[in-house]
This record gives sequence, C-alpha cells and structure tokens, in this order.
Amino acid sequence: MITKATNLVRILLKESVNAGDCVVDATCGNGLDTAILRSLVGETGRVISVDIQATALERARKRLPASVRNVHFVHACHSTLNQIVEGHPTPTVVVFNLGYLPGGDKTLITKPETTTEALSHALQIIALGGAVIMVVYRGHAGGEAEAFSVEQMISALDPKQFVVMKHQSLNVVGVPPYVLVIERRV
Amino acid sequence: MITKATNLVRILLKESVNAGDCVVDATCGNGLDTAILRSLVGETGRVISVDIQATALERARKRLPASVRNVHFVHACHSTLNQIVEGHPTPTVVVFNLGYLPGGDKTLITKPETTTEALSHALQIIALGGAVIMVVYRGHAGGEAEAFSVEQMISALDPKQFVVMKHQSLNVVGVPPYVLVIERRV
Repeated sequence: MITKATNLVRILLKESVNAGDCVVDATCGNGLDTAILRSLVGETGRVISVDIQATALERARKRLPASVRNVHFVHACHSTLNQIVEGHPTPTVVVFNLGYLPGGDKTLITKPETTTEALSHALQIIALGGAVIMVVYRGHAGGEAEAFSVEQMISALDPKQFVVMKHQSLNVVGVPPYVLVIERRV
Repeated sequence: MITKATNLVRILLKESVNAGDCVVDATCGNGLDTAILRSLVGETGRVISVDIQATALERARKRLPASVRNVHFVHACHSTLNQIVEGHPTPTVVVFNLGYLPGGDKTLITKPETTTEALSHALQIIALGGAVIMVVYRGHAGGEAEAFSVEQMISALDPKQFVVMKHQSLNVVGVPPYVLVIERRV
C-alpha cells in the first residue's frame, strides 16, 4: 500500500537515495531504516546510524551481515548531529522516526527540544537537493506536543531554500503516524 | 524533487501501475498523465483517457506515436465513468487532475458535483488493492469549494474499505496543488 506511512517512506527513500551516497538514520531504533538505507547506498556508500539507546544499536547491528563495514553506529543523542557527521561525506538524506523504541522502554521517547535541535542540524548538513524524511508518531504521551513543535518549525522554513511536504491519513481512526519531507533546494 | 505534486504523482504511479493493467485518466487534459500511464501499462495494458473537451483529447492524441493502439480516448464527462469503463477490464488505477485545461479556456473547470460523482464511480470500479490518485488545484475561482467537497467525501470513507492520504506542502506561498490518494483495501 502506498498509503501506509512506512511503505511511503520506503518509496521516497528509493527515489531519494543513490548508490554511493552518505546517509544518516538519526533514530536507529530496531534498525529497519538503517538496513534499507544500507541496501540503497550499496557497498560504496555510507550509513551513519544514531541512537541514544545502546539496546537499539545492538539490535540494529544484528540485522546486518557481519561483513558489512560501511554502517557507522553512533551511540549518542541526535541533537549532536552536527558533531556526529564531522569527518564524513555530506549526507544526502537524513531519516527520523520519532517516538519510542518499538518493543523497548516506552517512557524513553524523543522530545521536542532535542528533536527540533537535531532537525535543525539535519537541515544544515544535508546536501543541496537532499532531504530529511521524518515519521511522526503521536499516539503516546508527549507525541502531539513534539509533532506541534516540529510542524511549527518546518512550516516557517524559507520556501526559497526548502520545500516542506506533509503526507497524512485522512480517514484513519485514532492517531496514525504521518510523514514529513523537507527537501533542500538546489 | 519528491516534494513537487506532479513528481510525487509520477512516483506513486510507478509504484501502483503494473504492465498489463487497465488504468483510467479521468481528466486527460494535455495528455501528460495518459502518456505516463501508457508507458507504465506497456503494450499489453490499456489506458482509458477521458475529457469533456475535444481540444484536450486532440492534444493528448498527438503526444502519442500513431502506432499506439491501446489508449482509448473518450469524449465525455467523467461523471459518467461507470458507463465509460463498461466492457473494459477492471481498472487498477484512476487518475484525476482537477481545475482547468492548462493553456485552454480557464472558465471551463471541473466542478464539485461532477467531480465527486466521478470520484464516487472511480472508487466503485477500481480493483481491490487499486488506487485513485487526484491532484487538486485551488488557485482558480471555484477551486477551494471543489477541494472542500472532495475532502469532505473521502474523509468519511470507511477505513475498513479505503485508506485515504493527503500529500500537501506546508511552507509554500500561495495555494499550491496537493495530492490525494485513496487506496481500496484488498
């Protein structure tokens, strides 16, 4: 289904990421996106995969064959993204999945202040023509507030520099996740 | 750019349409989408391309090589879509571009009553797993009213039967077009 948030992200990643690219998974979690990004950048590219939880990075590492050498796992808060990418090639795409680690501690969630700081760094470090792709979950306590902070920030971005798009469900019961895409104009 | 409405439609069509499919361009216009659909369904598929303006159909026909036999141009109002598709295979995808014919008479526009009727038919005739993809333009007089009617209708669709998604720009000045996707659940 092209209307499911996670599927849509895969479709958009396939369109945005090229073999050889350096890309960032700013919220590694269980490593699903890291694995997808690795398959898209191939042998010649690089994936920088960040998480504040060591458990997440361990799970993600196990998802990849031991022979894979071009995924750099970084145990840090994504709000330090500017420092994390130092010494790496310019990233073309940065992916975020907000909320908590699925199957992990649901009280450990991404927060408005650190998420907007990380996003702000992401928008500064991505290549011209690059994109930030963010999946926003709002079903948990604090989710709506975080979503509000993020939308407020990106809606104010200069349209000459960035194009911002929101992909949301209209008829789903409850609070389905939605997808934000911010592209940096060439 | 994956954030531009027309590019997004191409990306979603590429994901939704398979070779051999029967698909419908419910608002042929200058035939851009008809040509894209024809390339996606290939020699073995079928495109039914509808427009109420003969000028539009003539332009669209010229866009295709004379040897192409599997594009069926129909000079009719798309509100009769249920009759138009009679005798054809079940369509997997129906595309709409609302508004006026680019480069044509700007007073000839799609209207709320006929658009919602056409959309209602489209949702009934598409295959399970199929999709309606609609680009909504609102910059012209009557555009906002039409957009409102359409959104009201699709937001009320049973989520067990259909998934509805809206893809919209958040930071663009003016009234940019946006994309609606309605998928029929399998």
